[in-house]
Amino acid sequence: MTAIAPMSVERYQRIRKLLSTRQPSLTVCLEQVHKPHNVSAILRSCDAVGINRIHGVWDHKTKLRKGTAMGSEHWVKTEMHSSISDAVGVLKQQNMQVLVTHLSDDSVDFREIDYTQPTAIVLGQERHGATEEAIALADKNIVIPMVGMVQSLNVSVAAALVLYEAQRQRDVAGMYDALQLNEEECQRVLFEGGFP
Amino acid sequence: MTAIAPMSVERYQRIRKLLSTRQPSLTVCLEQVHKPHNVSAILRSCDAVGINRIHGVWDHKTKLRKGTAMGSEHWVKTEMHSSISDAVGVLKQQNMQVLVTHLSDDSVDFREIDYTQPTAIVLGQERHGATEEAIALADKNIVIPMVGMVQSLNVSVAAALVLYEAQRQRDVAGMYDALQLNEEECQRVLFEGGFP
Ligand SMILES: C[S@@+](CC[C@H](N)C(=O)[O-])C[C@H]1O[C@@H](n2cnc3c(N)ncnc32)[C@H](O)[C@@H]1O
Ligand SMILES: C[S@@+](CC[C@H](N)C(=O)[O-])C[C@H]1O[C@@H](n2cnc3c(N)ncnc32)[C@H](O)[C@@H]1O
Repeated sequence: MTAIAPMSVERYQRIRKLLSTRQPSLTVCLEQVHKPHNVSAILRSCDAVGINRIHGVWDHKTKLRKGTAMGSEHWVKTEMHSSISDAVGVLKQQNMQVLVTHLSDDSVDFREIDYTQPTAIVLGQERHGATEEAIALADKNIVIPMVGMVQSLNVSVAAALVLYEAQRQRDVAGMYDALQLNEEECQRVLFEGGFP
Repeated sequence: MTAIAPMSVERYQRIRKLLSTRQPSLTVCLEQVHKPHNVSAILRSCDAVGINRIHGVWDHKTKLRKGTAMGSEHWVKTEMHSSISDAVGVLKQQNMQVLVTHLSDDSVDFREIDYTQPTAIVLGQERHGATEEAIALADKNIVIPMVGMVQSLNVSVAAALVLYEAQRQRDVAGMYDALQLNEEECQRVLFEGGFP
């Protein structure tokens, strides 16, 4: 039997600092995004902009390749849903605007959105993009402008561009300066994060 | 023997339109970035913001996995250099400011840079980041802010965030509204692009 070492003061403070910048009113929903390197890159970007919880709809539970996510899976929880309508239902219950990243004529430029509002960004599958159902359920389609010959960006790239526009707006609005996470969630992260 | 069909008017016009938005005064330099999916994602982002030529320093020529770059390798040329000092030399001869993406205390926030100036962005290797030599040669270190526990972003994500900040600034400055490529380069692309 091994004893568990108590958390160091430094680590406690580091995690407390982390928690003070978390943005529970910002999230992503991965619709069948299945390549491990893409999921991992998205998790890292989520952690970097302060997202503590993401949502996913997968046919088979996509396993993260150990290492590539650089440990971000410890800091960003994934909530699984059995269908996109279940997922969007949960997000709308949390009063989130649901935006689907999708390349179409009626899409809004991603920089025109107000991301200081509670926001969930739906990202589509690598090959086929977001489903018709996701597009129908979402409040808006958003698009990242492109001037070249290639038809789409890599999904983790698209995710990061939208998330960092949200980060920029939220930073200007002072949303990283005040604790937004509730105490229950803080305790959960402190407990789990204390024993890596 | 098969005859080569002449280029259609539509294709000619599509390529002409592409050329009118190309940004020869913006580029990236990949220093030992070696994972094919990252190189491919970076090429797609480059094409999307109008970059026609990138630079690379690799020990062994990194082969692009067919398909993943979605054909962007036809529209974005890669210039190989045998060392980072050769590469930076070529870029500085073109009067480019050379920025290395690097996480350190003296790094400048990536949004504080003026990307309407001729600019080359150096991206470092997946595991080790940019070399000391690259950092010493560059004009500035730039960093993308992160508030989480993870220490770095995926390299293709970092590339896209900087490139899209450049795209935003150049769009505001009207740099996508006037032809910037010289006629020789236009002819090369038209010739090669006519026969896919
Ligand atoms: C490779 S793309 C899918 C392409 C698919 N053929 C389509 O037309 O939707 C995978 C995902 O990346 C995101 N994406 C890629 N490029 C985008 C762009 N320019 N604007 C918005 N989202 C984009 C979307 O979430 C998309 O579902
Ligand atoms: C995974 S990182 C390398 C991490 C490496 N351990 C280091 O400390 O540099 C690979 C490349 O992504 C880019 N990068 C990742 N996160 C970045 C950030 N927050 N700011 C600037 N560049 C970043 C840089 O080009 C870096 O060389």
